[in-house]
Amino acid sequence: MSVLIVGSVAYDGIEAPAGKVDRILGGSATYASVASSFFTSPVRLVGTAGNDFDEQDLQFLTDHNIDLDGFRIDQSGKTFFWKGRYHSDFNSRDTLDTQLNVFEHFDPVIPDSWKDSSILCLGNIEPSLQRNVLDQVRKPRLTLLDTMNFWISGAREALEDAISRVDIAIINDQEAKELTGKSQLADCAREIRKMGPSYLIIKKGEHGAQLYSDELLFTAPAFPVPGIVDPTGAGDTFMGAFAGWLDQADTLDENTLREAVAYGSALAAFCVEKFGPGRFAGLDRSEIDSRYDALRGLSRIPGRS
Amino acid sequence: MSVLIVGSVAYDGIEAPAGKVDRILGGSATYASVASSFFTSPVRLVGTAGNDFDEQDLQFLTDHNIDLDGFRIDQSGKTFFWKGRYHSDFNSRDTLDTQLNVFEHFDPVIPDSWKDSSILCLGNIEPSLQRNVLDQVRKPRLTLLDTMNFWISGAREALEDAISRVDIAIINDQEAKELTGKSQLADCAREIRKMGPSYLIIKKGEHGAQLYSDELLFTAPAFPVPGIVDPTGAGDTFMGAFAGWLDQADTLDENTLREAVAYGSALAAFCVEKFGPGRFAGLDRSEIDSRYDALRGLSRIPGRS
Repeated sequence: MSVLIVGSVAYDGIEAPAGKVDRILGGSATYASVASSFFTSPVRLVGTAGNDFDEQDLQFLTDHNIDLDGFRIDQSGKTFFWKGRYHSDFNSRDTLDTQLNVFEHFDPVIPDSWKDSSILCLGNIEPSLQRNVLDQVRKPRLTLLDTMNFWISGAREALEDAISRVDIAIINDQEAKELTGKSQLADCAREIRKMGPSYLIIKKGEHGAQLYSDELLFTAPAFPVPGIVDPTGAGDTFMGAFAGWLDQADTLDENTLREAVAYGSALAAFCVEKFGPGRFAGLDRSEIDSRYDALRGLSRIPGRS
Repeated sequence: MSVLIVGSVAYDGIEAPAGKVDRILGGSATYASVASSFFTSPVRLVGTAGNDFDEQDLQFLTDHNIDLDGFRIDQSGKTFFWKGRYHSDFNSRDTLDTQLNVFEHFDPVIPDSWKDSSILCLGNIEPSLQRNVLDQVRKPRLTLLDTMNFWISGAREALEDAISRVDIAIINDQEAKELTGKSQLADCAREIRKMGPSYLIIKKGEHGAQLYSDELLFTAPAFPVPGIVDPTGAGDTFMGAFAGWLDQADTLDENTLREAVAYGSALAAFCVEKFGPGRFAGLDRSEIDSRYDALRGLSRIPGRS
């Protein structure tokens, strides 16, 4: 068992109704790998950071037992930086600044000893890089891919090709509509699954997440967090937790898939409680299980008597 | 046991991606009473229609065993007419025409023999009329109120007063935000419940519905209907089915509330499959139960092993 996660490692500047932070650890691979680490081991991170990467952030990753043999500090420049502002409803955000820095030349190289990883998570990066990674690995048990609107408009062909080669596509509701030109999620799901993936997850933010396959349609609610602080990374967190849960399970049966989505939703709900990945420091498994149980109670429909 | 429903009876003109109809039976009391009739009896309708009300529509109501002693045909004019156009995502609609006609002078009078009804449903009408009805009835077991954005901006004081006097408020997500000025539904729910109602249901369209009380937070998904035809009346249908289910149950325990929300969601999903209330003609209980079971499967999170 092993989860290989490829994605961005970044510093983020966040402005939100609850306050602001100038510079905090972020990036799709960061959130996904930390979330995955609560469920399985080893979790392997392929990514790059720059010469300004802080010792304490490296420590944060190693504290979560994340294997960093594929993580490179590129001394030629600074870490990818993104700055954004959330509005009060958290359903939209403005990008205030993007500095690609060393991420501009990110060329993911999978260490030989990692090429047989069981589960491959392709975090939100340029689709051509996602394809390069797919070319490097040897028959993972499962491949997952996340993306974002930027690539739908800017690199559609490569993105559709990458999607066609994975088992599980993960996308949010707005992106699903943009990718397919459909307005109803069920229609979006049908179109995206036609591209190739056996499984599709549509993330709906405060409305939870849906899983579509030939055999299963499942919808998990979002845990209602009072006073969301920072939604950055919630989607990446979802993917990491989902992949981590699948990795520790032997099978891909219906219950395992339902559990994985619910654990993804549970971890995402922790993610938004603090700026950056701060809420994961010291988070323990019993808290996670309690939130899983809460989601279960939230959505329980009694059997007919 | 008895459900008393007060609201509009109307003719609607609908334009939607699936087609258009020039004139079809509608109105909040129509949808709510028909939905309620699948679960309980008697269902009592207080409303008014005009001199153009068709015999076949009267027959449609009586076919569903709806008691019409409080329904008045006002010969002085025509039935309330509304015309609207839905866009492809069904999340917004344009009102193309509104002719209040006899509904302008609607003054609901509860027949003496109906004043002891068990459950009172105040459909979407002017809040001052909702208050008038509350003044006429004798201690119903439960009172429910639905409303719409028009009254939030146009009759806020009367609306807040009416809300303060009912047990269960039902409102959609956009209206909840507009009523409270909050952007997170959990915050909206807290503010609305502070106004008085012990229970609040927030309807979220394709994202299902949430129930809030001191003891319970419950969220039911919407059943994913392939090819929605006409969402008109889905919210009224939800309320009617919810009330009907509560009426046939003796208690208001947690399971009953969960069941009522899920049946509300199930009936709403039938409502949108045809123009107007057309899908309810011939709908039988086994189809409804199958949809309830489907919703249950859709949202089932396994217990932790």
